[in-house]
Amino acid sequence: MNKGIIMYRSNTCGELRLSDAGKKVTLCGWLQKGRDLGGMTFIDLRDRYGITQLAFNMETNAELCEKARKLGREFVLQISGIVKERENKNLQIPTGEIEIVVEELLVLNEAKTPPFTIEDQTDGGDDLRMKFRYLDLRRTPVRNNLMLRHKMAQQTRSYLDAQDFTEVETPVLIKSTPEGARDFVVPSRMNPGQFYALPQSPQTFKQLLMVAGLDRYYQIVKCFRDEDLRADRQPEFTQIDCEMSFVEQEDVLNMFEGLVKHLFKTVKGIDMQSVPRMTYADAMKYYGSDKPDTRFEMKFIELNAASNNVVSGKNFKVFDEAELVVGICAKGCASYTRKQLDELTDFVKRPQIGATGLVYARVNEDGTVKSSVDKFYDEAALNDWAKAFNAEPNDLILILAGAADKTRKALNELRLEMGTRMGLRDKNNFSCLWVLDFPLLEFNEEENRYFAMHHPFTSPKPEDIELLALGKLGSVRANAYDLVINGVEVGGGSVRIFNKELQAKMFGILGFTPEQAQSQFGFLMNAFEFGAPPHAGIAFGFDRLCSLFGGAESIRDFIAFPKNNSGRDVMIDGPSEIDQKQLDELHIALKK
Amino acid sequence: MNKGIIMYRSNTCGELRLSDAGKKVTLCGWLQKGRDLGGMTFIDLRDRYGITQLAFNMETNAELCEKARKLGREFVLQISGIVKERENKNLQIPTGEIEIVVEELLVLNEAKTPPFTIEDQTDGGDDLRMKFRYLDLRRTPVRNNLMLRHKMAQQTRSYLDAQDFTEVETPVLIKSTPEGARDFVVPSRMNPGQFYALPQSPQTFKQLLMVAGLDRYYQIVKCFRDEDLRADRQPEFTQIDCEMSFVEQEDVLNMFEGLVKHLFKTVKGIDMQSVPRMTYADAMKYYGSDKPDTRFEMKFIELNAASNNVVSGKNFKVFDEAELVVGICAKGCASYTRKQLDELTDFVKRPQIGATGLVYARVNEDGTVKSSVDKFYDEAALNDWAKAFNAEPNDLILILAGAADKTRKALNELRLEMGTRMGLRDKNNFSCLWVLDFPLLEFNEEENRYFAMHHPFTSPKPEDIELLALGKLGSVRANAYDLVINGVEVGGGSVRIFNKELQAKMFGILGFTPEQAQSQFGFLMNAFEFGAPPHAGIAFGFDRLCSLFGGAESIRDFIAFPKNNSGRDVMIDGPSEIDQKQLDELHIALKK
Repeated sequence: MNKGIIMYRSNTCGELRLSDAGKKVTLCGWLQKGRDLGGMTFIDLRDRYGITQLAFNMETNAELCEKARKLGREFVLQISGIVKERENKNLQIPTGEIEIVVEELLVLNEAKTPPFTIEDQTDGGDDLRMKFRYLDLRRTPVRNNLMLRHKMAQQTRSYLDAQDFTEVETPVLIKSTPEGARDFVVPSRMNPGQFYALPQSPQTFKQLLMVAGLDRYYQIVKCFRDEDLRADRQPEFTQIDCEMSFVEQEDVLNMFEGLVKHLFKTVKGIDMQSVPRMTYADAMKYYGSDKPDTRFEMKFIELNAASNNVVSGKNFKVFDEAELVVGICAKGCASYTRKQLDELTDFVKRPQIGATGLVYARVNEDGTVKSSVDKFYDEAALNDWAKAFNAEPNDLILILAGAADKTRKALNELRLEMGTRMGLRDKNNFSCLWVLDFPLLEFNEEENRYFAMHHPFTSPKPEDIELLALGKLGSVRANAYDLVINGVEVGGGSVRIFNKELQAKMFGILGFTPEQAQSQFGFLMNAFEFGAPPHAGIAFGFDRLCSLFGGAESIRDFIAFPKNNSGRDVMIDGPSEIDQKQLDELHIALKK
Repeated sequence: MNKGIIMYRSNTCGELRLSDAGKKVTLCGWLQKGRDLGGMTFIDLRDRYGITQLAFNMETNAELCEKARKLGREFVLQISGIVKERENKNLQIPTGEIEIVVEELLVLNEAKTPPFTIEDQTDGGDDLRMKFRYLDLRRTPVRNNLMLRHKMAQQTRSYLDAQDFTEVETPVLIKSTPEGARDFVVPSRMNPGQFYALPQSPQTFKQLLMVAGLDRYYQIVKCFRDEDLRADRQPEFTQIDCEMSFVEQEDVLNMFEGLVKHLFKTVKGIDMQSVPRMTYADAMKYYGSDKPDTRFEMKFIELNAASNNVVSGKNFKVFDEAELVVGICAKGCASYTRKQLDELTDFVKRPQIGATGLVYARVNEDGTVKSSVDKFYDEAALNDWAKAFNAEPNDLILILAGAADKTRKALNELRLEMGTRMGLRDKNNFSCLWVLDFPLLEFNEEENRYFAMHHPFTSPKPEDIELLALGKLGSVRANAYDLVINGVEVGGGSVRIFNKELQAKMFGILGFTPEQAQSQFGFLMNAFEFGAPPHAGIAFGFDRLCSLFGGAESIRDFIAFPKNNSGRDVMIDGPSEIDQKQLDELHIALKK
């Protein structure tokens, strides 16, 4: 603590060492816990930087020791005393070799007993911890999450600054656009009947910054989506938002592979190898997902492919009639019990997964294969299965069948479940992947029209543009890319359309009338008339990236003041009702 | 350009030098201007990094030269060619010793003629430039403003990171509070009839972070106020927001004086001396303003003070009846003409300043004094004036009289006007000042109650707390401080109340019922029951700080996409109407 003049304390609770023995110091902090041991009282004093043991001696200073014994948990204390080598050292913590023999004690503030324990493992439930978030944040693991987030932001900026990216703040009060998710809106007092929208992303602004010649832009920025919430979704979230000019997809992949490596190196001390790449088509074919968890292999093998059909024509109707028969091979799992296999069957038959059943085959120690459908498949046939999977003795083959898309999705879930059961999804093991060549458009059955898979500004691959003209909309691939880490999509972006005609055509395909396109995105299309450079970009979900680096499932613990699934901040009890006067000024009324 | 693999270009337009002569390069950029000189055509190619001259030779490549002659301003080009030493060097720009003999030319995008010239001095008016902001941002001075802002943010973070401040993102969707300015609100779809508010500052959250033990927090953060706008006010603005625990006012002043020095050093190359301090009372007494421009002295001298009254009792009713007679001495301005003095009189009599008249006195070359009220004051009396002002030959004394507060305010305006006329307000000269000991409360005549001058969480000075009990509310001073640079308030903060009882008492004084206080700030007062540390903080207006460093009056040119005085972004034409479906989902209706 030599940074700035500090009047309340000479040191923090995290910095005193054996070499400081004999010094007179003043510390401030919270009473973590106290212990009365006969003639001595010990107090652990805690601040952001660590814990220091305070010692009070009944023999040498009874009054002070009595005073110390009356203090409660989480009292805020200021103490002065002498640093002394401890008798019972605690080598688990950096300050564990010393204690402070306290000479003066001042209670700066008292504390009611906290509603849960301020320990690494707390007894507080989620709701209570959220209501008293300021107490939850006192716990070391939660505070460490915020420190990790800070470091991630620092290192992101450090990398991008060094690469000549300019940080530009884009506006928060913008204009509502119907494409995409639902907007949060803000009634305008000065423009009656009109509303601002909060940005779902700074997409159009960053493209305009490229038209403006900024060349390389980034921002760590809050974005907003009024969607129904889940554990891993917040109404406000943070993006690392980036855009570059005069680049092609390859440039963007290299630049941001660099960012990811930099973050792993500086934040986690991990030397990440170059990031493998996979097409969307392969990701779907081999993993049934556009965000495969590549910490483990266990690729899909198709069993009724025209080139190598090892299941059809054996009178097993389920396989014969299925559009797709596809499976995975779980190494060394042949010993799974009947109960375990039943669990897996129940797992894939759950409504949210929706498979009708699970076929399995065990490769025995002696190389023979035993399946759940032995009456249709003889030993030779089952050997063909094993061969298709490259299965070895003790392996377990798991097979699903049905409509292709649905079956792939179900097998993806089963693969992830097997990965978890087999301990292949260690949160301290990181596997990155670029997924490339996404479809440009996806058909929405309900609305009976195509939607942009990424967003309406994404460029089709040049070699696929003629497919657009031919009306083969579903086959057109985009110059779009996602970064996937451990099966989680942490970033995505695309090469943008920078030609006004192509952009207008895209809006047409997406069902915009020219008037709608002009009214919604006219300023961008107009901008494209004044010399737009080729440009491309990417955005990373910062909350998600932090939780991944922190080895956690939920993003909430990496957000200082998160909202619950109803979009409420239970600590401040917001949102809330507002005064009639406010409503009147905003020219709106509540609807009964 | 060695950062990342760049496929479109080998170099930027700002980096080639004489030492690169002979190299084959590829550049991209915008056509700034072209010149046809007989057999040669020259094009200035511009990107963010600079300008490079392209040369086309009619003799050696007529086809390419003809093509180049047909290009228009702001076309986006990609060219390849050989770097060559120029015959006519332009030593004004870093690339001015070379040109590129172009061998290949590709038009990446065409451009309509821009509605104004993309030059340092443009012919575009404000409205046009805002509508086509993406073109305005192409101009070097505007782009430089954004680069300055980026550097300011970088260096702010660099300083605060090094001082162990943790950057924490606080929520944007919070809860409306009636105290302070008007909130922007956001209807909640999931909580019918309820609204989020956008934060006017993260005040309560940063205090909660201190209760949480974060110790040192900062954030460069967007804040929002739905106030009527002026040239220097935006509905969304950016703050450098900071808070520290276990500190007193002196610590905060030192820490942030350090920040300001760091910014001046790293951004402007200026070694700023330690920042002088002045009490609020002195600022008002000597400058008539709580944000005096201290680039020049010209302090107020009171002429009817009990201790030294040099004006009363001479039958000049205006002075005799005035609560305050106060003036300034403009060095060397005795030669002001009648016309100039009339201008000054008109200036102070303008309704927004509101003085009833201006009395002046000239100190002549020979030391005699000549005033506009000679018939009341003889030479001896006028000599007393001159003495009071320490006036020397050739000085001009300017005096106002009337009600104290109003007269001080008017004289402040006159002082600033004289400073401007006398060239004492050089925008490249920076004078910083801490203003301290603000009143805790100010009385609002309209609402007939006291308001917090800073905000309701500001601590009174300990020695003034007894005045609170005595009901002398107007005399209580706060542990509050402002940083003023060149007469502009760029930052302000305070030591906070960290005691629940005192905070509750403050709310009482501010006219909150206990129920209102609990409903609005209950979470903060509750938090104070669980061990709040002493804490204090400060916030800087980042837009304002950037414009000051950039030597500009308006903050708009330091904001990428600003709004106009009606809160509109004229480029995107927002805010705008939204669909009935959106209104319905949000449970609100428009008011006719």
